[in-house]
Amino acid sequence: MHALEVSLGDRSYPILIGPGLYAATALMVDHFVGKRVAIVTNETIAPLYLAPLTNALRDLGLSVVEIVLPDGETYKTGNTLDRIYDALMRERCDRSTTLIALGGGVIGDMCGYAAATYQRGVPFIQIPTTLLAQVDSSVGGKTGINHPLGKNMIGAFWQPKLVLADTDTLNTLPARELSAGLAEVIKYGLIRDYAFFEWLEDNMDRLVSCDPDALTYAIERSCANKAEVVAGDERETAKEGGRALLNLGHTFGHAIETALGYGTWLHGEAVATGMLMAAQLSAHLGWLASSDVARIGDLLARARLPLKAPRLGAEKYFDLMGHDKKNIGGRLRLVLLKRIGEAITTSAIEPGDVLAAIAACCADQKEPSRDG
Amino acid sequence: MHALEVSLGDRSYPILIGPGLYAATALMVDHFVGKRVAIVTNETIAPLYLAPLTNALRDLGLSVVEIVLPDGETYKTGNTLDRIYDALMRERCDRSTTLIALGGGVIGDMCGYAAATYQRGVPFIQIPTTLLAQVDSSVGGKTGINHPLGKNMIGAFWQPKLVLADTDTLNTLPARELSAGLAEVIKYGLIRDYAFFEWLEDNMDRLVSCDPDALTYAIERSCANKAEVVAGDERETAKEGGRALLNLGHTFGHAIETALGYGTWLHGEAVATGMLMAAQLSAHLGWLASSDVARIGDLLARARLPLKAPRLGAEKYFDLMGHDKKNIGGRLRLVLLKRIGEAITTSAIEPGDVLAAIAACCADQKEPSRDG
Repeated sequence: MHALEVSLGDRSYPILIGPGLYAATALMVDHFVGKRVAIVTNETIAPLYLAPLTNALRDLGLSVVEIVLPDGETYKTGNTLDRIYDALMRERCDRSTTLIALGGGVIGDMCGYAAATYQRGVPFIQIPTTLLAQVDSSVGGKTGINHPLGKNMIGAFWQPKLVLADTDTLNTLPARELSAGLAEVIKYGLIRDYAFFEWLEDNMDRLVSCDPDALTYAIERSCANKAEVVAGDERETAKEGGRALLNLGHTFGHAIETALGYGTWLHGEAVATGMLMAAQLSAHLGWLASSDVARIGDLLARARLPLKAPRLGAEKYFDLMGHDKKNIGGRLRLVLLKRIGEAITTSAIEPGDVLAAIAACCADQKEPSRDG
Repeated sequence: MHALEVSLGDRSYPILIGPGLYAATALMVDHFVGKRVAIVTNETIAPLYLAPLTNALRDLGLSVVEIVLPDGETYKTGNTLDRIYDALMRERCDRSTTLIALGGGVIGDMCGYAAATYQRGVPFIQIPTTLLAQVDSSVGGKTGINHPLGKNMIGAFWQPKLVLADTDTLNTLPARELSAGLAEVIKYGLIRDYAFFEWLEDNMDRLVSCDPDALTYAIERSCANKAEVVAGDERETAKEGGRALLNLGHTFGHAIETALGYGTWLHGEAVATGMLMAAQLSAHLGWLASSDVARIGDLLARARLPLKAPRLGAEKYFDLMGHDKKNIGGRLRLVLLKRIGEAITTSAIEPGDVLAAIAACCADQKEPSRDG
């Protein structure tokens, strides 16, 4: 088992990474405030992991409320959130109840947001069961739901007490979702860790075939990178750089997800294509060599991620990117690459350059394709 | 103009109290981050105060979004909150938008909660237009909405950047709402400020007749009392005393409000009757002299507040009090009086004693009555 500390003063918490952790209640017991626990999960995860976790918690003498939600990004809404609140209220859960998020990023975001807002805040533990959730949402405390006009528009910063990243749960993960997680792993190499990018070039085949040691290393290094960024800018208030760098590819990606309806593309797929669009724009500005764009494309392709964006029309891209949270005072703010391993934030890009990059990356398709 | 600082480290903010403040944009200008402002108000307040405020802000060169909600506690719901989110999204308000709450406690709580959660948090300014909001919700950062099974069950701690308590706005306040605000004013005397309680006994007639100097003094002293309590226990985590003391009368009061449907009794009216029930229970336990219960009843009566609780049945009271946030680990936690000017929190009260106090305070009525 590998351990990592996310350092945020009195909101610091550990991430434990390794096999056999998801029902290891001995690791959780110090983090419970009262005698009640509510597990939030979904219909896909529940048959795999819910009963062993519930039983292990009941063996500790805890009262357990199970809240099983429908699966998918389309359900990351206020209506689904209300199902969590309703269950907590019906069961008379009070402020000493600990929430446990058992599932992927959608469950983590919704359960975390419910924890942030139920009775103005209760503790929560994350047990992420997808690679994406393990390397992304397990660090940083971003929680929330989607609004019909934009992703993650309603939310709060709320740190978990503990994260258990169980690599065994990746064995039941569909290959497409593993790839989506690898997009975020590659992102850490691109924005701040060139040596890790090189390691990924050497080890991508092991990752795609679910080699547990390779996965453990990639998760730990990804979380460590994210933890360093978050520790320096917890609430994303830095004017330049800081936490915003983690959004490489996200502004383009959000446009894809929003235009096609959440769920047609997986978040990680949209981010992968978005990162390539950002790389293309960086090259168009003369910052990045076109050989580096090709190198990024190659690694994404080996991770079985889509390279071409859907042809929505440049205007629509602009419109949907304008609804992205990262835009300050109405100006389009982007994360771009100075080189592989160094990203910057900028609000100084001409619309014409953005349009050119969009055009260079689009193809006539709506479903994500791995053909490049 | 009187000024008061709420000391909460980097979340500290000033409260300014006096006449002619609600559209004094010169006082606000340092607190705007970007060029956009969204004013959240209701249909009752809008005709009185919205246009002058909007115009004054536009004169500063700001872009102003007006969000006018229906009036009343019954609208303190997720559906009404969605109207705020929808307007902000439709107008493409980003993270640099400042929200302004122009109205009473319901508007303050909902606008504050929207500010806490829109794009994971934007700044907000409070312009409370009721006495209750000026002396209660303007200090402490509690924001939120009701759930069908309980008041304020969904929410967040989110501090305003500035509070402008304009005593002129109390001239348009219905007498019943002025009295409801006086219940919270009396509360500060009861829980921690005996000298203020005596001052209220000497000056209640001036307050009821809206004497501006008396009101300014009462608002300032109330806010100062609350600010001291909140500074010592910002997130209500103290195990004994602390912020929970501010809930004197609230556990009983919430039961009344919930049973009769929000809005039949005003919050302050339910708190007034709840405080008398808490005093009655304190006397039953031998802590408070029965002459002090009478003295409290007299002051509440002079503030034109209801003294008798509706006869819901003791079981129903218990049931509804059990859904109150202040109950830790399933035990009923109450705020009671050791004497006038000193409150304590306790979880050690026998149900039989609570039932006796409820029975002693009930009368056959549903509408709040001022006949005692």
